[in-house]
Amino acid sequence: MKLGMIGLGKMGFNLTQNLLDHGHTVVANDVNEDAVKEIAGHGAVPANSIRELVAGLEAPRIVWIMVPAGKIVDGVLDELSGLLEAGDIVIEGGNSHYKESVERAARMGERGIAYFDVGTSGGTEGARHGACFMVGGDKDKFAVIEPLFRDLSVPNGYLYGGAGGSGHFLKMVHNGIEYGMMQAIAEGFEVLDKSPFDFDYEQVARVWANGSVIRSWLMDLTERAFSKDPKLAGIKGVMQSSGEGKWTVETALELQASAPVIAMSLFMRYRSLDDDTFHGKVVAALRNEFGGHAVVKND
Amino acid sequence: MKLGMIGLGKMGFNLTQNLLDHGHTVVANDVNEDAVKEIAGHGAVPANSIRELVAGLEAPRIVWIMVPAGKIVDGVLDELSGLLEAGDIVIEGGNSHYKESVERAARMGERGIAYFDVGTSGGTEGARHGACFMVGGDKDKFAVIEPLFRDLSVPNGYLYGGAGGSGHFLKMVHNGIEYGMMQAIAEGFEVLDKSPFDFDYEQVARVWANGSVIRSWLMDLTERAFSKDPKLAGIKGVMQSSGEGKWTVETALELQASAPVIAMSLFMRYRSLDDDTFHGKVVAALRNEFGGHAVVKND
Amino acid sequence: MKLGMIGLGKMGFNLTQNLLDHGHTVVANDVNEDAVKEIAGHGAVPANSIRELVAGLEAPRIVWIMVPAGKIVDGVLDELSGLLEAGDIVIEGGNSHYKESVERAARMGERGIAYFDVGTSGGTEGARHGACFMVGGDKDKFAVIEPLFRDLSVPNGYLYGGAGGSGHFLKMVHNGIEYGMMQAIAEGFEVLDKSPFDFDYEQVARVWANGSVIRSWLMDLTERAFSKDPKLAGIKGVMQSSGEGKWTVETALELQASAPVIAMSLFMRYRSLDDDTFHGKVVAALRNEFGGHAVVKND
Amino acid sequence: MKLGMIGLGKMGFNLTQNLLDHGHTVVANDVNEDAVKEIAGHGAVPANSIRELVAGLEAPRIVWIMVPAGKIVDGVLDELSGLLEAGDIVIEGGNSHYKESVERAARMGERGIAYFDVGTSGGTEGARHGACFMVGGDKDKFAVIEPLFRDLSVPNGYLYGGAGGSGHFLKMVHNGIEYGMMQAIAEGFEVLDKSPFDFDYEQVARVWANGSVIRSWLMDLTERAFSKDPKLAGIKGVMQSSGEGKWTVETALELQASAPVIAMSLFMRYRSLDDDTFHGKVVAALRNEFGGHAVVKND
Repeated sequence: MKLGMIGLGKMGFNLTQNLLDHGHTVVANDVNEDAVKEIAGHGAVPANSIRELVAGLEAPRIVWIMVPAGKIVDGVLDELSGLLEAGDIVIEGGNSHYKESVERAARMGERGIAYFDVGTSGGTEGARHGACFMVGGDKDKFAVIEPLFRDLSVPNGYLYGGAGGSGHFLKMVHNGIEYGMMQAIAEGFEVLDKSPFDFDYEQVARVWANGSVIRSWLMDLTERAFSKDPKLAGIKGVMQSSGEGKWTVETALELQASAPVIAMSLFMRYRSLDDDTFHGKVVAALRNEFGGHAVVKND
Repeated sequence: MKLGMIGLGKMGFNLTQNLLDHGHTVVANDVNEDAVKEIAGHGAVPANSIRELVAGLEAPRIVWIMVPAGKIVDGVLDELSGLLEAGDIVIEGGNSHYKESVERAARMGERGIAYFDVGTSGGTEGARHGACFMVGGDKDKFAVIEPLFRDLSVPNGYLYGGAGGSGHFLKMVHNGIEYGMMQAIAEGFEVLDKSPFDFDYEQVARVWANGSVIRSWLMDLTERAFSKDPKLAGIKGVMQSSGEGKWTVETALELQASAPVIAMSLFMRYRSLDDDTFHGKVVAALRNEFGGHAVVKND
Repeated sequence: MKLGMIGLGKMGFNLTQNLLDHGHTVVANDVNEDAVKEIAGHGAVPANSIRELVAGLEAPRIVWIMVPAGKIVDGVLDELSGLLEAGDIVIEGGNSHYKESVERAARMGERGIAYFDVGTSGGTEGARHGACFMVGGDKDKFAVIEPLFRDLSVPNGYLYGGAGGSGHFLKMVHNGIEYGMMQAIAEGFEVLDKSPFDFDYEQVARVWANGSVIRSWLMDLTERAFSKDPKLAGIKGVMQSSGEGKWTVETALELQASAPVIAMSLFMRYRSLDDDTFHGKVVAALRNEFGGHAVVKND
Repeated sequence: MKLGMIGLGKMGFNLTQNLLDHGHTVVANDVNEDAVKEIAGHGAVPANSIRELVAGLEAPRIVWIMVPAGKIVDGVLDELSGLLEAGDIVIEGGNSHYKESVERAARMGERGIAYFDVGTSGGTEGARHGACFMVGGDKDKFAVIEPLFRDLSVPNGYLYGGAGGSGHFLKMVHNGIEYGMMQAIAEGFEVLDKSPFDFDYEQVARVWANGSVIRSWLMDLTERAFSKDPKLAGIKGVMQSSGEGKWTVETALELQASAPVIAMSLFMRYRSLDDDTFHGKVVAALRNEFGGHAVVKND
């Protein structure tokens, strides 16, 4: 098939290579001209603007957007909607909030453009060699683009999830689960690290990754991380987050669904951003007030 | 009434003064001779040993033990059980585990000695001027010592809770609730501290302490703490704990009772003891592995 | 002083009586005509419409709005803004989201109307006999209305908290703390209830309410609740919530503040709304899959 | 090799078959005579008593114990210690607490018997076709029995973890992680189930099991569970637990390690055992007391 790809960051670049490997024709654009040149070297058709990209496609056009979530997506959509026509298809594969995708699908739908929200998982490796896709949008039109997902994913690695927004909803919840799994694994190693035993963490991760109930890709990655730095001595325990975990907790609140493990995973991440905490000061001060318990003073 | 007091630390000393204020005769002993001399200056009968203390009482004797929980209590009981006789009464007012109290009551009961486990709350101020007591032990014998609790407590501030161990069980759970309340208050101020507003925390604590749903002694103490250090800038957020919160969580686990708030309060205390965490390193390393997210390096 | 009161529900009615007790003149309106008649019987000036209420006041007018949060407040404000003039003052005392209050203050400010957002705590009893108020808005104008709060509150029971929105922000966080305190108390009684002892919960609550570290109005209320129903046998453990706890958690997420106890308190409330849970089914099914552990079947 | 197997339940039976498949000679015993007969049918040497089992082995003997954890293990060890001699080896593969294993290793060590504590994971399928083993005990002696684990496990699926107790410690923590992972997955499906979308859970589990970051054996099993009952309508969300999750939380408490996610996973299991909760009643009663909020009455 022939399609356009807007956005050649880590994910978009790898997806494009993956598409090219499978014999698709990709007209590729990015604000970074070097990325456009580089992907052209791999066989993509370079496009120096979105206008040029659209001009390089024939109706019904398929355009895949793989740019940072938020206003950048809306900017691209604004530009695209003046260039595309009824019957064209837009695939948005970034980490957008599912409510934004519902709105965007409606907006594009008014112009007769089919809009698919696609949650992508599997990391940069997956994008390159076989990832996992959760797709929301019009069911009939999905048949048109399904071959792309069949080629880009691992076997059984894509799903048409339902109405518009459902793709990003699934990806959001996937990431919430990911937060919980990662924190569970991490707490386990924390207990090992405070235990009286002297474990080889790389070996522990390896045995847990092979044959155990908790075998998983995350455990494979844990093994890999310890293989590079046996006690992770070189890095700080600062746990950043990129938004979907927070969205999952917010959605759980909205749906009145109890999600304590996902929420605690997120709160421990926030806790890790602070060297000291105000709540800790308050508790320490209170213990001093009622029990005369000594506080630890700041220097 | 006449009784012996073993242990003249912060709590035992204040309780003795409180007893003396109410006209009781107290034979007082401590391993620290200065404390014995000091309390004698307030009107207590000094005893330089437990033997001397017991000799200073008439049967049926009443001995109050107010020493650090654990083996020290057992040491005192071992010595006492060779000196006391059937019909005598022992009151143990420290922060003992309720299961220890059940065992000790049985051990003393074999010699005909009535044993009361007493949970004491209200801090050092309460011990001096009116505290809160939760008492477990033989119901009939409790009538003998009830006047002491009536005098030492604030109005409605003592309770015969039931069989041996129930006093320390109530105190344990009381402290578990205390952990949860303190953490709830502390989290509230953490949210204020990260808010875009510029609150005067002492004033906030004062208004919450007067007329609100969350008015409480802990809020009074919060106000007092902020009055001394408006932003608690001088202290670190290190939250020590002395055991009863942990016992409450362990007991909840044993009873299969869901106690998430008390447990989280305790875990946040443990978290505060570490500058950095191993679980944080593991999560940060995993994010790097699958998503290429940058880690914060150690210097 | 003379002021208008819009909204005569449980809170508005009691506040009006409280104002009348203190010699203020209150022109009172509600969509429920019976409530208007009833408050007139207590000495208020009845107003059958907002227009009539405003007509009954002299510039600079003071209007207190005490209606359910959300669109009803906006409806009242829309009507009021056509009737009030520059220099008038609006006090909004409901449980509004602080961000709404920031917007409303800006909207009213464009017309020269000073807008105060007021968080009210202390329940219906407090509204009647002395409550707790947290006020946000213009500091200079606050001096004009301060006498009202001095009269309506318990001693030290009101606070000018800062810029517009700060009053409702403080109330929101207050409620978050309230959720945590309530859950902590409740978990304590859950542990008692599953313990081998046979406690009299009313007596336990009473002794904890007197002299202990956890003495608080909530513990007084716990005692009162058990005095009416010693084991709470007549009610189900369904824990509704009215929004501020959720807002506190959402705000904590937005501010990246760790608030595990407040969040868990809320999630346990949501959990209580379901007789059975889907997450429980998934875990039970998984245990069956990997370990052959029996599941509990539905009838 | 030749060894004895005591205990032919789901795990012991499958392990024995697995050993037989790999050409080992297994003298097998169980209190259930039918199980002994059945395994004899698969090629094991039947032993109608532990004495007979030991008699069927030559020094240095190897005896694998696979019986329910707790006193049954101690009973078997008591009997064995009168039959084995210095130089013999005991392997205990059940879900014992690691502290018990430390004690048992010391007890057996006094008689010159090497004792290995083995945590086994992978479920009954793993026992049959390739599991995961974590082994604690004497390092030198481990070389003697290592061939057994090489044969019984999947590739890279066994680990000598260190001193006595370390095998069961690793298994305990493994199960703690398992609790957290399962709850994370389950919460994700709970959010899906309360969402406005209409997902096919089997398909969702399948796509998440293929190519995503959260791909794992547990997700494979989730897919399998949904393939049997698409909405899990036939089962109740009652989440039993068998002890290791509780031990992990207790160990975390003891080590002052923060393990909120594992703890919350366990508390949600306990919560699921109750149709109604006492803590819920207390919170509902309190809301009624201070705010007049209606309670849900029991019929």
